Amino acid sequence: MKPVFLTPGPSELYFTVEDHIRQALKENACAISHRSKAFEAYYKTAVDNVRALLNVPESYHIVFTASATEVWERLIQNCVENQTYHLVNGSFSKRFYEFSGMLGKNAIKLEKPLGEGFTADEIDVPTDTEMLCITQNETSTGVSVPVEEIYALRKKYPECLIAIDAVSSVPYLDIDFNKIDSLFFSVQKGMGMPAGLGVWIFNERCVSKATTLTEKQIPTGTYHSIESLLEKAVNNQTPETPNVLGIYVLGKVCEDMLRRGVDVIRQETNYKAALINYLYNEHPMFSHAVANETHRSKTVLVGEVKGMPASELIAKVKEHGIVIGSGYGKNKATQIRIANFPTHSKEVFEKLVDVLNEMK
Amino acid sequence: MKPVFLTPGPSELYFTVEDHIRQALKENACAISHRSKAFEAYYKTAVDNVRALLNVPESYHIVFTASATEVWERLIQNCVENQTYHLVNGSFSKRFYEFSGMLGKNAIKLEKPLGEGFTADEIDVPTDTEMLCITQNETSTGVSVPVEEIYALRKKYPECLIAIDAVSSVPYLDIDFNKIDSLFFSVQKGMGMPAGLGVWIFNERCVSKATTLTEKQIPTGTYHSIESLLEKAVNNQTPETPNVLGIYVLGKVCEDMLRRGVDVIRQETNYKAALINYLYNEHPMFSHAVANETHRSKTVLVGEVKGMPASELIAKVKEHGIVIGSGYGKNKATQIRIANFPTHSKEVFEKLVDVLNEMK
Repeated sequence: MKPVFLTPGPSELYFTVEDHIRQALKENACAISHRSKAFEAYYKTAVDNVRALLNVPESYHIVFTASATEVWERLIQNCVENQTYHLVNGSFSKRFYEFSGMLGKNAIKLEKPLGEGFTADEIDVPTDTEMLCITQNETSTGVSVPVEEIYALRKKYPECLIAIDAVSSVPYLDIDFNKIDSLFFSVQKGMGMPAGLGVWIFNERCVSKATTLTEKQIPTGTYHSIESLLEKAVNNQTPETPNVLGIYVLGKVCEDMLRRGVDVIRQETNYKAALINYLYNEHPMFSHAVANETHRSKTVLVGEVKGMPASELIAKVKEHGIVIGSGYGKNKATQIRIANFPTHSKEVFEKLVDVLNEMK
Repeated sequence: MKPVFLTPGPSELYFTVEDHIRQALKENACAISHRSKAFEAYYKTAVDNVRALLNVPESYHIVFTASATEVWERLIQNCVENQTYHLVNGSFSKRFYEFSGMLGKNAIKLEKPLGEGFTADEIDVPTDTEMLCITQNETSTGVSVPVEEIYALRKKYPECLIAIDAVSSVPYLDIDFNKIDSLFFSVQKGMGMPAGLGVWIFNERCVSKATTLTEKQIPTGTYHSIESLLEKAVNNQTPETPNVLGIYVLGKVCEDMLRRGVDVIRQETNYKAALINYLYNEHPMFSHAVANETHRSKTVLVGEVKGMPASELIAKVKEHGIVIGSGYGKNKATQIRIANFPTHSKEVFEKLVDVLNEMK
């Protein structure tokens, strides 16, 4: 039997994906022109359904890139002339910070030890900072930034663009887009899709910043500049031949999730998180990797393993047909990461708890 | 019945693709980590098989991007400080040229009317040019640059990097890599795959140019700089979570083509091209869009339509289950483009000829 992947991305495919791929091939979705009406319909469906699922205001643009990694680059290229500020507490937030430096910007960071989170009152963003970069869900450590802290930062720094990396929290994350300027994610995590597609959402403040840079003759890139992306997006097209299959499947998976109801998905996520959090609290072999409860991610549940190497535990769990993730980087030996995405059923979580309890 | 797409990309999928996708899903190719041994094996298979299929020397690197469009940007970013030279005779070569300007380089072009090609002796590349950019097969007009002209340019300008856009000629194109520095393509044309993956081949001269730029503190990008790509490629990995499914399928399709034999594929391509060229010569409704026979592409066969709008002809052909491409841009009303890729069988070409002959 195929094992179930509870790894934090790539992860188990959403259970409808295989059918959607089959249907896409039947419809010749991969053979049609990306300038055809048929493609435009796929594009529009994907954008409309992402908008509905995440409650994105009509005034915000939704475009596609190849990955969330690409969005780090495009965001800074298009919306920053001189200076960014980053909350860094893990590998992905650190890389976002490093990208800014590589692109020749003055990148400032507030760095916390792995496993620790941030509150708005301890953050002091220097004036002249153009973008505040927040990894809302640090996949490497399982630390989340609560939306209330983000809203407080918005109040504190109304002039600064706020960019949210929500790679592993979408669609669970319930955020008020009016209090942020950009949000992005890749589809191989919470959306349960094959990797190779990034979704980038941004508002008119980002657009006008890009326009300002262009007026100052600062290069903002080529085919994936905001200007070039929007020029095609207005016709439901992309500048390049894109991952058409990915865009097709994204529209369908969002539709499936809308039918199930995003509230139901969020409730189930909470239930599954509670199961694992209880285990991390009570089970003698585990403890929480994230000490502060308010900073614990609900979608990437990270535990410290005691009494055996994490790799041994992961191997034992795998014998039961469940693949859980290892700790990231230097935490590989001692931590596990359990993804809690919409495709992961309550039943598989209950089975995982049983398996782990039997090891007591 | 599903129609057959003879459009010049996206095009009909290679006939084994659907099976490979099914097998990939069975193997959990989309759920595994892109840092796992299983992914490294997919990566290595794809690189090894591309190398074998196109006869790429061992010393040349093969890496993956999201599209050939992306390679235009990355090539210029990584290998050019000041100046590029472009042969422009259609929409794609023009866009490659424009990218260089957008990236702040001094982009020089030799422009020819649509449908015309180039010979080495008429090309005068200014000194200080770092890269000569050649769209070997201009998909928009069906004009090819013969490899002999490219080799002559190499002799004429040995110091200049030569970059070859072979988007719609791979794997038909038989080129000596030792006489060029970089070649790239996307997989939705000759390889018959779903779009969303670019293949970028380059040599050590490109690498050392990128190193020079870095030493001069000229930004070469972030995750898809040559440096970052090679840092991961050495371990058969990618900097970001890539289009894993695409990489998997690419390895398999190359294997299928190797089994069939690239020589057989090239011979069949010549045969199918001869059928259409005969038709463009003899059929009263057609003439060649590319007057000079030596500059006519064998993989994108472009014809002028007489006596009816091209759209009407395309619609009539479609009634017989064959979708041919329209002319590109301003040639849409008067031209057709017929793709001649490995997945397109001799039988479908013979049927197309019959259909068109019945319209006489």
